[in-house]
Amino acid sequence: MTDEYYMLQALREAQKAYEEEEVPVGAVIVLEGKIISRGHNQVEKLTDATAHAEIIALTSAFNFLGSKYLPGASIYITVEPCLMCAGALYWSKISRVVYGADDEKNGYRKYISPPASIDPLKTAAWPFHPRTELVKGVSQEECGRLMKDFFRSKR
Amino acid sequence: MTDEYYMLQALREAQKAYEEEEVPVGAVIVLEGKIISRGHNQVEKLTDATAHAEIIALTSAFNFLGSKYLPGASIYITVEPCLMCAGALYWSKISRVVYGADDEKNGYRKYISPPASIDPLKTAAWPFHPRTELVKGVSQEECGRLMKDFFRSKR
Repeated sequence: MTDEYYMLQALREAQKAYEEEEVPVGAVIVLEGKIISRGHNQVEKLTDATAHAEIIALTSAFNFLGSKYLPGASIYITVEPCLMCAGALYWSKISRVVYGADDEKNGYRKYISPPASIDPLKTAAWPFHPRTELVKGVSQEECGRLMKDFFRSKR
Repeated sequence: MTDEYYMLQALREAQKAYEEEEVPVGAVIVLEGKIISRGHNQVEKLTDATAHAEIIALTSAFNFLGSKYLPGASIYITVEPCLMCAGALYWSKISRVVYGADDEKNGYRKYISPPASIDPLKTAAWPFHPRTELVKGVSQEECGRLMKDFFRSKR
């Protein structure tokens, strides 16, 4: 399956968040071609500012595998992770982070700016695990549109 | 009560972690002079790389108050928060972050370096909420000693 396929699954999670009046971010974690966990933003429902899609998907994947690390796994996130989620992804040692739309307001790159051409040796400005691969811009338009629609509807 | 008093309560949490063979970090959250939540590192017990003392204390405080924000509250953490926990503290809008020992290996300042004299106007290199006050070095020696003892015993 392609990155676009898994991102579509993450978008379905984001759509659920949208319908629940949560900021529409979704995530799925994939290992050996199988989706092992899903998450969508539940900050309002759980009254918990840390209940982001990524954190929910990570905790679910740890539980499913009985492992505190996720080497070999990929996470697909509809929107650029925030600083908290970037830090959580670091601890998970996940192998690939794939995200759709940029988030200029709350994305981790507001605080940490890796070099424009990502250095394979990684630098101090690399929040993820040194072996983690980062891919951005997958289905960017659809992922971003859901966010724009949400915030427009809230004005 | 003084900052040292609440840090001693956080140290008790860290001691619990130590006894459970977890990296010995503890945290308590205080609102209007009362401890409303406690947490210690449970990464091994929960097999969850995100189960840091701060995240557990935050989630517990959100539940206790039925609120996703913690304005007016203070968190006492025995060790400098990591990037994930700094991000979680940002989202919580907590008013004061007080920590004991520095963590050069995993502390958020490895990635984000605020100016030496913390600018009251805050800068882009400030991971917390703009209104959050930061205090460091409270009971630094005791907090750091527990970490050193732990890692020495693991060698």
